[in-house]
Amino acid sequence: MSLLVVGSVAFDSVETPFGKRERMLGGSASHFSISASFFTDVRVVAVVGGDFGFDERAVFDRHNIDATDLEIVPDGQTFRWFGRYEYDLNVAHTLDTHLNVFAGFQPKLSDNSRRSRLVFLGNIQPDLQRGVREQVPDAELVALDTMNLWIDTTRDSLQKTIEVVDLLIVNDAEARQWANEPNLIKAARKILSWGPHTLIVKRGEYGAALFTKEEYFAIPAYPLESVFDPTGAGDTFAGGLMGYLASQDKLDEAALRRAMIFGSVMASFNVEEFGTERIQRLTHEEINRRFRDFKRFTHFEEIPFERAVRAVQ
Amino acid sequence: MSLLVVGSVAFDSVETPFGKRERMLGGSASHFSISASFFTDVRVVAVVGGDFGFDERAVFDRHNIDATDLEIVPDGQTFRWFGRYEYDLNVAHTLDTHLNVFAGFQPKLSDNSRRSRLVFLGNIQPDLQRGVREQVPDAELVALDTMNLWIDTTRDSLQKTIEVVDLLIVNDAEARQWANEPNLIKAARKILSWGPHTLIVKRGEYGAALFTKEEYFAIPAYPLESVFDPTGAGDTFAGGLMGYLASQDKLDEAALRRAMIFGSVMASFNVEEFGTERIQRLTHEEINRRFRDFKRFTHFEEIPFERAVRAVQ
Repeated sequence: MSLLVVGSVAFDSVETPFGKRERMLGGSASHFSISASFFTDVRVVAVVGGDFGFDERAVFDRHNIDATDLEIVPDGQTFRWFGRYEYDLNVAHTLDTHLNVFAGFQPKLSDNSRRSRLVFLGNIQPDLQRGVREQVPDAELVALDTMNLWIDTTRDSLQKTIEVVDLLIVNDAEARQWANEPNLIKAARKILSWGPHTLIVKRGEYGAALFTKEEYFAIPAYPLESVFDPTGAGDTFAGGLMGYLASQDKLDEAALRRAMIFGSVMASFNVEEFGTERIQRLTHEEINRRFRDFKRFTHFEEIPFERAVRAVQ
Repeated sequence: MSLLVVGSVAFDSVETPFGKRERMLGGSASHFSISASFFTDVRVVAVVGGDFGFDERAVFDRHNIDATDLEIVPDGQTFRWFGRYEYDLNVAHTLDTHLNVFAGFQPKLSDNSRRSRLVFLGNIQPDLQRGVREQVPDAELVALDTMNLWIDTTRDSLQKTIEVVDLLIVNDAEARQWANEPNLIKAARKILSWGPHTLIVKRGEYGAALFTKEEYFAIPAYPLESVFDPTGAGDTFAGGLMGYLASQDKLDEAALRRAMIFGSVMASFNVEEFGTERIQRLTHEEINRRFRDFKRFTHFEEIPFERAVRAVQ
């Protein structure tokens, strides 16, 4: 009854200057749900092929992720992504994409899933996202992710989708592109006028920012000397954020602010190793240690300036 | 006896998509000292030509800036800079530069200036910066600014200069370039191994970060819907930062953190209008209001995550 994610489950093959991995468990729903599972119960809605085997399912089981709505197409193949990162890990190249069973994905929610309190609409075609949104009319908070592809090719559908969600989570290039506005603060104001009460903007190594109609909150990224594989960082961030929110009784702004920190903590671990390797063996103690680090990294005393009164000039 | 700045005093001609101005008071020492003057007494070491007139001097006088060491070359012309910004104000073009009297600048410090407690070596040729540094052996804190030009053309001299300063203030591209290291955290570690105990990295619209051997601190930029003219933002930031530090008895890390906020506040005002126009009519109330805003924009409650204990699963 807590958190639902709809998105992709994939096998990723990734090359970076520091190494390579073949056929790792990946996809937005995988990264999101493993991250969220540290904070709450998660249900995953996605589709896989007959090649999705025991080892992959065991990962979901170990993290107590409910895969009842994980559709299996026995004679199909799971979504595959092949990517390569340059030495500057901000430069990513998609070498190949095999949509496979993902091409015909029609998310179907069980009765339990329809009663989820929080919902994350991962980065899939916006008509599908809206279809899921209609199946969870009573959700307390529905969040949306998207990407430049959908902003370019399905803008009308995306516009209808944003009108029926509460929270948009995108990166800053996407926010500017969607709002057609180079200034991020103006872009945020425009996006909030379309429906969502909150916008969260991911800025990679520069951190993240939260916009509501009344407030602004911004945090740096966790400082890392070695970034190994950024694949899934955005979904891992969203998983920590939504998972933490699902653990809270009140979804107020104070909770959202802490949720952004937990999302950033999870993303910081994600990029330290390939795929979900680091996140899979994470402990709550490690998570809370970085949460406290964030306080140290951002705290200052609120002492306004007062001109010293000098008796003698 | 408090804060000394050495740098350029110039006449700037600036075009942006929002308007243009001819022959405004500019240069690193001008932006720095006007900004710092809100917090402390400032002495300026620079050179101008006979065209530096009553109006420009009046700006310094009004802000109580000590111009004793402002050298005037009566038959010379003041440094001129001509620049243009694109609609994306991060893209700047230098249209023309007339060094004029600045080409022969040899900073000479009066006895009073030599007794300054804090010194800011603005962005000039590193041999000149080192020459000034040698004239202030008893300064409590000496800060250095530089730019890609000096990193490219006078790296050896710059390396000697950084070894004799306490604080380096540069933007993130400069830090990465100088350290020859794309990861900023690694670049910071390398730079701190060269001598300075503190590195402050300016990140424009993404804020600023502080590195010491033990600590890290990062803040967002003040969120602005309209940025008008970014000229001098970096020196205005440094002026607020060093000016605030000069007003404090203890130059510890807590003071440095607050100083970064005051620097960011000053820079946020600077970019709202052309040149020093906005800063010149600023009030302490306005400064403290934005300082408090920064607290609101960055505060979160330090409540670590605790898994709810569920009596019934």
